[in-house]
Amino acid sequence: MNYRYSSKTPNTDTDAVGEILKAAADPKIISFAGGLPAPELFPVKEIQTAVNQVFQAKGMTALQYGGSQGIPELRKVVAARATLDDITTNEEQILITTGSQQVLDLTAKLFLDSGDTVIVEKPTYLCAIDVFKSYGAHLVGIEMDEDGMKMDQLEAALQANPKAKLIYTIPNFQNPTGRTLSLERRRKIAQLAQQYDVLVLEDNPYGAVRFEGTPLPAIQSFDETDHVIYTSTFSKILAPGLRLGWVIAPSELISNYKRLKQSADLHSDILSQYIVAAFFENNDIAEHIAKITALYKERKDVMMQAIKKYFPKTVSYSRPEGGMFIWIEVPGIDSTQDLFDRCIQNNVAFVPGEPFYCQEIVPGTFRLNYSNMPAEQIDLGMKRLGEAIREVIQN
Amino acid sequence: MNYRYSSKTPNTDTDAVGEILKAAADPKIISFAGGLPAPELFPVKEIQTAVNQVFQAKGMTALQYGGSQGIPELRKVVAARATLDDITTNEEQILITTGSQQVLDLTAKLFLDSGDTVIVEKPTYLCAIDVFKSYGAHLVGIEMDEDGMKMDQLEAALQANPKAKLIYTIPNFQNPTGRTLSLERRRKIAQLAQQYDVLVLEDNPYGAVRFEGTPLPAIQSFDETDHVIYTSTFSKILAPGLRLGWVIAPSELISNYKRLKQSADLHSDILSQYIVAAFFENNDIAEHIAKITALYKERKDVMMQAIKKYFPKTVSYSRPEGGMFIWIEVPGIDSTQDLFDRCIQNNVAFVPGEPFYCQEIVPGTFRLNYSNMPAEQIDLGMKRLGEAIREVIQN
Repeated sequence: MNYRYSSKTPNTDTDAVGEILKAAADPKIISFAGGLPAPELFPVKEIQTAVNQVFQAKGMTALQYGGSQGIPELRKVVAARATLDDITTNEEQILITTGSQQVLDLTAKLFLDSGDTVIVEKPTYLCAIDVFKSYGAHLVGIEMDEDGMKMDQLEAALQANPKAKLIYTIPNFQNPTGRTLSLERRRKIAQLAQQYDVLVLEDNPYGAVRFEGTPLPAIQSFDETDHVIYTSTFSKILAPGLRLGWVIAPSELISNYKRLKQSADLHSDILSQYIVAAFFENNDIAEHIAKITALYKERKDVMMQAIKKYFPKTVSYSRPEGGMFIWIEVPGIDSTQDLFDRCIQNNVAFVPGEPFYCQEIVPGTFRLNYSNMPAEQIDLGMKRLGEAIREVIQN
Repeated sequence: MNYRYSSKTPNTDTDAVGEILKAAADPKIISFAGGLPAPELFPVKEIQTAVNQVFQAKGMTALQYGGSQGIPELRKVVAARATLDDITTNEEQILITTGSQQVLDLTAKLFLDSGDTVIVEKPTYLCAIDVFKSYGAHLVGIEMDEDGMKMDQLEAALQANPKAKLIYTIPNFQNPTGRTLSLERRRKIAQLAQQYDVLVLEDNPYGAVRFEGTPLPAIQSFDETDHVIYTSTFSKILAPGLRLGWVIAPSELISNYKRLKQSADLHSDILSQYIVAAFFENNDIAEHIAKITALYKERKDVMMQAIKKYFPKTVSYSRPEGGMFIWIEVPGIDSTQDLFDRCIQNNVAFVPGEPFYCQEIVPGTFRLNYSNMPAEQIDLGMKRLGEAIREVIQN
């Protein structure tokens, strides 16, 4: 039958990224395509202990319906963590969500009408592009350098789009580039948000996993006029399978998020909320994050060395101080798909740059993930990737 | 600051239902207001066993990211359960959601543009009204009798709204009325859906909890033209805190739901999905549902007897054959709020009818929940409620 979809439903049902991940899932292939944490570091035992404690103390409560804002115990954990980003907040200004992905969705729903402008980094998180487009947003991309979004371009975009509703940014170890927004630019974004009366959605999934350099305060810490909404997640520091994230926002917004959250899924998994709260009570999260950081740094170093060893000198790449991704730019490549196909033949995979761009694509760009692969596999995969690059450039 | 919300964001931030539930939460009050399962029947031990099994067998997988459609093990459970409603399906046509509430949200997002018509029962589930309105839908309510939606009114509404996109119905033990759609009307709805080319969203959270009468086939079982989308949940037969529901739909729709699901929250809690799959593997769910059914029937009977004992003879009420709710209509009451306030003084609570109506309200109506309260408390609470009704009618 011919379904009459909403006008915002795309005409095609092609899922380019799905196809890429499918191709990369072949066990023969060394995949740098996904964005998965290292599962061998999941604290399975400690979480199991937490679960048993929850069942002992409040099994019935953990299995019953709960409040849309999330359990107070977990909101307290979040409020305490926020201080690490120089954010002062309290449980009342926090709402627990089904992953930070849901914060993107609820934020888009709360603010966007069809045709509204959202300003994003160029490139940016591909599912953020999907979400904003699913509400009919017009996306404007801002170029980046190694210090993140360029401020002159951002200001020009704000002037050219005086009704822009939202600036979406991933300030730490950005997905897909691995780049970090400088201190000065954080201050500047907060100031521009006030000056042009536009909201900022600050998405910080990776910030806690820093290899080197100094932790930088959140953009929200410079916000004196309630223009910045902050979101983060337990996915990268604990376990993504539990789907728990959060939003920190002024009270007026939290009551609106609460209403939309109820409408979206009533509330997030109560058992998982109690599990995470108990895990934090029993364990030193800083110690756990230190383990993650050490392993990812080792893998990142291996990947960086492999770039130098195996890639042509003309290739440029980002130098992440944390997180999970390196961004590659190979000059002289017209179609990243050709390179991808060649890589699949060579049994190695990445995510081509295309889906990370809201507008014009920079060909020859792609994202590499290093968190999910042992060091020796990284070296081998990068060797194959280097060979594929040389072959494609020569043709 | 003055936030520039989407045009669909309501102007007021009053939360009438929230206020009611808050008032009802006072421990002095016997509350028939919520819609909670009896937590004393949650199979806490069996779920704990399932959790430990999951951690033993696949702790890392259960904590990692997963696919948007849900784990195959759980989709197989759902496909098997669907046969109880005379639905023939398979894992490919099933998507796991964060409660069935999310199916309402994703369905609205997939099909509705601002101004599109959705046909609902009058009264209906209040959060369904919220969801459809949050996408700008125009709601048309269809009157019910003891056999559910009236078919002549439904057909008239379809003629009057030839572009209607969706009929939303809760065929079994409806929320809030407890009424069940007759077999003949199920056939008729499927036929009207085809004839008027309108989709049906069949929401069946309560169907498994039947006290008496014969189980009826789902509307979807009469659908030969892919016009019916079916949703249900583990919330009423297992545990709502785990937030797991599902949608059964034709393949074309499932790939669209998958895309929206990814955009909304990537996927549902993986640990909880494995827990539920393991629970079903280890336990006889029919036996567990029989326990729930027996207890709710006992409580329903006590509440029905109390209506006869304590309420004026002019009061009319529904006679649910299953589920969790009885619907009351007290003639001669102008403001249900006055009755509610009087009840709160008498230390008893219900949910007034207003939020269940999409348009004109029938005063003097309210919903009673019996699943969440021991029998002796039900009798006492109903006595107080009867007194409050008499007082308000006399004034």
